Amino acid sequence: MPRPRVVILGGGFGGLYAARMLRKAPVDVVLVDRRNHHLFQPLLYQVATAGLAATDIASPIRKVIGRFPNTTVLLADVVGVDTAARDVQLEGSPGLPYDALIVATGVRHDYFGHPEWERFAPGLKTLEDAMEVRRRTLLAFERAELEADPERRAAALTFVVVGAGPTGVEMAGAIAEVARQTLAGDFKRIDPSKARVVLIEGGPRVLATYTPELSESAGAALRALGVELRLGERVVHVDGDGVRLGSGEALRAGTVVWAAGVAASPLGRALGAPVDRIGRVCVAPDLSVPEHPEIFVVGDLIALEQDGRPLPGVAQVAIQSGRLAARNALARLAGRPTTAFRYVDKGSLATIGRKKAVAEVGSLRLSGLSAWLLWLFVHILFLIGFKNRVSVFLNWAWAYFTFQRGARIVLTDGADRGGDTRRP
Amino acid sequence: MPRPRVVILGGGFGGLYAARMLRKAPVDVVLVDRRNHHLFQPLLYQVATAGLAATDIASPIRKVIGRFPNTTVLLADVVGVDTAARDVQLEGSPGLPYDALIVATGVRHDYFGHPEWERFAPGLKTLEDAMEVRRRTLLAFERAELEADPERRAAALTFVVVGAGPTGVEMAGAIAEVARQTLAGDFKRIDPSKARVVLIEGGPRVLATYTPELSESAGAALRALGVELRLGERVVHVDGDGVRLGSGEALRAGTVVWAAGVAASPLGRALGAPVDRIGRVCVAPDLSVPEHPEIFVVGDLIALEQDGRPLPGVAQVAIQSGRLAARNALARLAGRPTTAFRYVDKGSLATIGRKKAVAEVGSLRLSGLSAWLLWLFVHILFLIGFKNRVSVFLNWAWAYFTFQRGARIVLTDGADRGGDTRRP
Repeated sequence: MPRPRVVILGGGFGGLYAARMLRKAPVDVVLVDRRNHHLFQPLLYQVATAGLAATDIASPIRKVIGRFPNTTVLLADVVGVDTAARDVQLEGSPGLPYDALIVATGVRHDYFGHPEWERFAPGLKTLEDAMEVRRRTLLAFERAELEADPERRAAALTFVVVGAGPTGVEMAGAIAEVARQTLAGDFKRIDPSKARVVLIEGGPRVLATYTPELSESAGAALRALGVELRLGERVVHVDGDGVRLGSGEALRAGTVVWAAGVAASPLGRALGAPVDRIGRVCVAPDLSVPEHPEIFVVGDLIALEQDGRPLPGVAQVAIQSGRLAARNALARLAGRPTTAFRYVDKGSLATIGRKKAVAEVGSLRLSGLSAWLLWLFVHILFLIGFKNRVSVFLNWAWAYFTFQRGARIVLTDGADRGGDTRRP
Repeated sequence: MPRPRVVILGGGFGGLYAARMLRKAPVDVVLVDRRNHHLFQPLLYQVATAGLAATDIASPIRKVIGRFPNTTVLLADVVGVDTAARDVQLEGSPGLPYDALIVATGVRHDYFGHPEWERFAPGLKTLEDAMEVRRRTLLAFERAELEADPERRAAALTFVVVGAGPTGVEMAGAIAEVARQTLAGDFKRIDPSKARVVLIEGGPRVLATYTPELSESAGAALRALGVELRLGERVVHVDGDGVRLGSGEALRAGTVVWAAGVAASPLGRALGAPVDRIGRVCVAPDLSVPEHPEIFVVGDLIALEQDGRPLPGVAQVAIQSGRLAARNALARLAGRPTTAFRYVDKGSLATIGRKKAVAEVGSLRLSGLSAWLLWLFVHILFLIGFKNRVSVFLNWAWAYFTFQRGARIVLTDGADRGGDTRRP
């Protein structure tokens, strides 16, 4: 008799921890992702600002879980899910029947209903995003060095970050550091430290999910790095010249980075279950989908409240829900009762440049160097793969002592390949 | 009175060593490149086979020479050279007048007059090339894992390398190693070690510029790794299905890598000087261009014979000619006589997989482990940037002891970004 098959969609923290939980269970596991790598998203901003190489924060999914004897990894696009037939449809490949399904496909950026803004303001969810932001950031200084017109030069040296959650705060702090420290002295016609970094946030404070005191110290640290904070301002238009704010003010900027708004993976809606405003699946307390008790949803893709507050979109929620979904799937297959999900908050961390960070761990609130050291430790700890940990640690040590960033390499994008014969 | 300006086109070894030679001279130096990084081309095949990260073998040109007080670095496309007006034309930027010009823009691949083959068989000259080859190589195994049809599966697991110079030999050896060692055990439906690696060479032996004995031992090492050698065979057609040979035989292959044929940078012809069959500039013995004694050409772009043999396209020729061109440019500006170029051969090295290499240093011929250790030492020594050297050394130590490759990360190419919403 064949063993039941558990299919997992998505190789982020939720999917990987679910697969790990199942590795000794009497089931066959198939994990599908359209990328070959697991990505440590909290450090994407470091790739975007040339502090780390793309390979430092990614691990091949196949290497992480491909050697579990009961686990098959497939690199494929999921076209849909036939929930009635219990079958996942893959592009250009036969269907993948399941006995239990774990959906861990996460969220992506949302442009407030303006998808046309994306090409002017890349987000930070994938390695490709990070490489694109790196490319734009580094090339902005190069363009300024070539530019004779003072106004266009100033625009090239203006960087706008939209959204002051952890990603936006870390990104703005890192760009300011690159301009003030890493690039200082490398240019002859411009002074990179004159670059303007503007962080725009619709709400009244940065890091809105943290306590007001920590928001305050994060804001002060950003200002000390020379970042202009624009709180309570909404972006109403983005194009190749920069952004326009709700107040009518136009900011001319050569580089705009989007760190605001999330929209759920379209697979959430494909399950036929109720979803919230941004497309996250309204799951039962045991993470299963109403009407389809054999389907579980984990990580950023779940819409679930705990103690009256929505769950935050952080790695710990993904890890804990991934593990529970795996256990509940096994329980369901065995006809045993399932367990309700309860998120255990292990603390929040955000960093603002070299040696500064803010942290909340239980009732403890830290800021400054101690929070930064904690941040460093936790982030290296959660990187998957021993080699990545060593490499990231060495890269940081290098950056710390030299103010240099080892990954200041721009790859030309796809559109630019092949056709150009004017290679100097 | 303004100091004379020396313009250098190209930031490879030739251009960088020329700039370095000029750093204390009473001239203003402007180096122009269309990429922001210097690239250590001899290790590109390691990036292509996931042994090294792209950032390991590249250094920002600005970081290497941007702090010389007399040196300006510009990231720009060169459109042409007005040799009569002594002016370099940059795209979208004012012209760049020069008193002396050093052209170091190198060579790229040539597809035997069939540029349409390039999309089916990427070469290995840039980081983008290497990332594309890495993407195709790793995805070939993923495609085979998904493929049900045995014939298509076999084609996906066939890798063809065209050209058995150092790059082709190193590439074929590395693909064989990835298949037999790195990926072994990571797949459930296929056995990666069954992959077929075919190295095609038009000439009668591999590494034709080395001695016949070393070609022999390189060939034996390749065969021991499971590489099929097809010597004396020409490729007459390349398409999405694979290659066809002059003998009429068709090889179905999912991945084809091009390591044959070179064509000079188009700027060589733009100087109005005589060029050879592949567009390299026929320079005077002092590396200057006939009729334009203020223009010097260096590196792969020169057509020059020494002792009846053409100069090889290696880093040492670029370094030595870059230095001499800089000295000769200064001599010319000062009205002093110039010196003829004489290449001092410091030896040739090529590697074939882990622990195997061949080397010629003067009358010394090495093969096996001792040659490999020499190869390792020399390649790490010539990497630009202390951090790169440490990182490459650690990556190799890691790969050596674990058989793993740390950079098995595929980035989706440009065409694939943004539009796809089916993210599992």
